[in-house]
Amino acid sequence: MTEHAFILFAHGARDPEWSRPLEALRAQLSQRRPGSAVALAYLELMSPSLPDCLQALADAGIRRVDVVPAFMARGAHLRRDLPLLLEQQRQRLPMLDIGVTEALGEAAAVQAAMADWIAGQSR
Amino acid sequence: MTEHAFILFAHGARDPEWSRPLEALRAQLSQRRPGSAVALAYLELMSPSLPDCLQALADAGIRRVDVVPAFMARGAHLRRDLPLLLEQQRQRLPMLDIGVTEALGEAAAVQAAMADWIAGQSR
Repeated sequence: MTEHAFILFAHGARDPEWSRPLEALRAQLSQRRPGSAVALAYLELMSPSLPDCLQALADAGIRRVDVVPAFMARGAHLRRDLPLLLEQQRQRLPMLDIGVTEALGEAAAVQAAMADWIAGQSR
Repeated sequence: MTEHAFILFAHGARDPEWSRPLEALRAQLSQRRPGSAVALAYLELMSPSLPDCLQALADAGIRRVDVVPAFMARGAHLRRDLPLLLEQQRQRLPMLDIGVTEALGEAAAVQAAMADWIAGQSR
């Protein structure tokens, strides 16, 4: 059984179309990691919230989770709010081993890909 | 003389550290495109604004600009506000040919790099 999950943790927005690229990223990650569950969770305006997502994964038998902040950079949401939120969730869901990665926009490999892509974009 | 510029257009945040990955991306893009200027501009909370940035580029002799939304996805800011803002700026600064690209988080090559990077992150 799958015991590991990634959570793509994004800001959320009022426009339901906003989450489409996150859904596409989720599908690509699932292809690359068929042995892991891949879920989406949102800070605000969309559901599920991160606590609800973690609860659902725990209920489904997941035991290790890596939370991937799908943000361009780390502001107060990631520096201040996310560590507190994760600490609460670790106490609430002790069966889960919860880790967190760099923000996507800060990862060196992602930065290089963004620079490569932009460099090819001028008209 | 350089006549082309990229503007990395990001949301902005209260925390001054927030812009660091954008600065790093700007440096990487400058290396790849030494013939183009690369500027940062923000929707809110940081400066310069996009209008101020465009004005400064026009004053410096830039004639073609590609605005690159450094956002994970397109919500109301990009779908509704940015096209209106760019239309106003095209009227105000007719010497500038202003284009706009996909949002970084929506570009297929960037999505693939993000999925590759995440796939290597689990503990």
